[in-house]
Amino acid sequence: MKVKVAKKYGFCFGVKRAIQIAERNRHATTFGPLIHNAKEIERLQKDFDVSLSETLAQAQDSKSVIVRTHGITKGDLQTLKSQQIRIVDATCPFVTKPQNIVEKMSQENYQIIIFGDSNHPEVKGVASYGENVIIVAKLEELYDLTFSKKVALVSQTTKQPEQFGKIAAYLASRVNECRVFNTICNATFENQSAVDELSQEVDIMIIVGGKNSSNTKQLLKIAQTHCADSYLVEDENELDSMWFHNKTLCGITAGASTPDWIIQRVQAKIEQI
Amino acid sequence: MKVKVAKKYGFCFGVKRAIQIAERNRHATTFGPLIHNAKEIERLQKDFDVSLSETLAQAQDSKSVIVRTHGITKGDLQTLKSQQIRIVDATCPFVTKPQNIVEKMSQENYQIIIFGDSNHPEVKGVASYGENVIIVAKLEELYDLTFSKKVALVSQTTKQPEQFGKIAAYLASRVNECRVFNTICNATFENQSAVDELSQEVDIMIIVGGKNSSNTKQLLKIAQTHCADSYLVEDENELDSMWFHNKTLCGITAGASTPDWIIQRVQAKIEQI
Repeated sequence: MKVKVAKKYGFCFGVKRAIQIAERNRHATTFGPLIHNAKEIERLQKDFDVSLSETLAQAQDSKSVIVRTHGITKGDLQTLKSQQIRIVDATCPFVTKPQNIVEKMSQENYQIIIFGDSNHPEVKGVASYGENVIIVAKLEELYDLTFSKKVALVSQTTKQPEQFGKIAAYLASRVNECRVFNTICNATFENQSAVDELSQEVDIMIIVGGKNSSNTKQLLKIAQTHCADSYLVEDENELDSMWFHNKTLCGITAGASTPDWIIQRVQAKIEQI
Repeated sequence: MKVKVAKKYGFCFGVKRAIQIAERNRHATTFGPLIHNAKEIERLQKDFDVSLSETLAQAQDSKSVIVRTHGITKGDLQTLKSQQIRIVDATCPFVTKPQNIVEKMSQENYQIIIFGDSNHPEVKGVASYGENVIIVAKLEELYDLTFSKKVALVSQTTKQPEQFGKIAAYLASRVNECRVFNTICNATFENQSAVDELSQEVDIMIIVGGKNSSNTKQLLKIAQTHCADSYLVEDENELDSMWFHNKTLCGITAGASTPDWIIQRVQAKIEQI
């Protein structure tokens, strides 16, 4: 089977960077999962002795703590800093940016609005840098709220620019000054636009990623609009040779938390079909 | 004929204030028309000896110059200040605000975007306070432009909040930081919402204002959606008693440049019908 890989797929810049940092820091522990992929976390443990601390207390027992890609709260970071612990910061620079903005704007007495999911670790971390913070997952949540005269707006890195714009527009009409910081990262959308393109020229599409991963499911959905034979697999063992019957060109892409080595195994197996 | 006047009509706060300032400054000249109403300018000339200077050179010949409601350019103001001229500032505070914002943001190296009509004196004045200024009358004009990483957005005071929000949303997606200052004044919309209400309960509507005034024509348009017998008159002489045949309640409103004394004459004449 001939294979064509999407122009953009899999890990984003921040995740690749965090994994490289982890590989260079053997025997360290990550506070919280470094990324949202259990198999990659297993690999780091096995090959680099990088362990996973689920709690702050557990992390504090280590000599060397890696701060995960999504960042942690300011309070937790201060707790770690106050100990004799070596801190390795693998926070994605695109997450550090809204953290810094929220801290600065809060010091300048802006009310902070974060467009994001209040349960997401990235958003919890970013919010912890401000004093007067409102987190909204959608525009409608703003309707009944009272605002300060000056607000600053940031976004979770993976949110939709269109929704972010609507929130900015609404706030602009409600307050005297709305300082809008575009902290959305394009990586997710680049993978989406690449699968949109690729799925139009192949006769079967394989999407590699977690079945619970929302960005992976989004890739599948986009692929299906052009290519009816689109399948989501977590690894090469889930491939079914029946799918490839009478097909000539197979497209491959992968979710943002899927490591390259899993994608490569999937690709190798398809090429042998 | 029974008459009911709209809850809000005629002059806005800034215009009322400017006229009071002019009345307190007999023998002064205004640089540019104080407001967009020839009859009111005539009255100020006749009753208070407040003249009209159409050019800067003409204004410089006076001892006392009144800066009009819409403001003037920074350069013109500086020219006047450099002379032995007494300057009376009747610029509406809602116009001074975007002037100050543009000056400050420009000093902080923000690129300035003004949502407004580039030929309007208010917009010319506001724009003159910045270095790197783009004026757009509608969203589409932004599509092909290149922006700095940091932009500051202000609006002409009479623009629609909805369009302003769309521009804010678009800019937020194109730049790193968009600082949105809501400099829209509600006065125009208050007159509009009052005529919308009143025209539903009367059987004839009289709108007093200039036939070329865009805000007056807008009031007529709104009135006509509820009350087919809606008429625009510039003064009481244009009233036609035929219009009032078989009618019982007449609503009255007036454009933003219509002085109270003209409205009162119109009202008195209708009451006599």
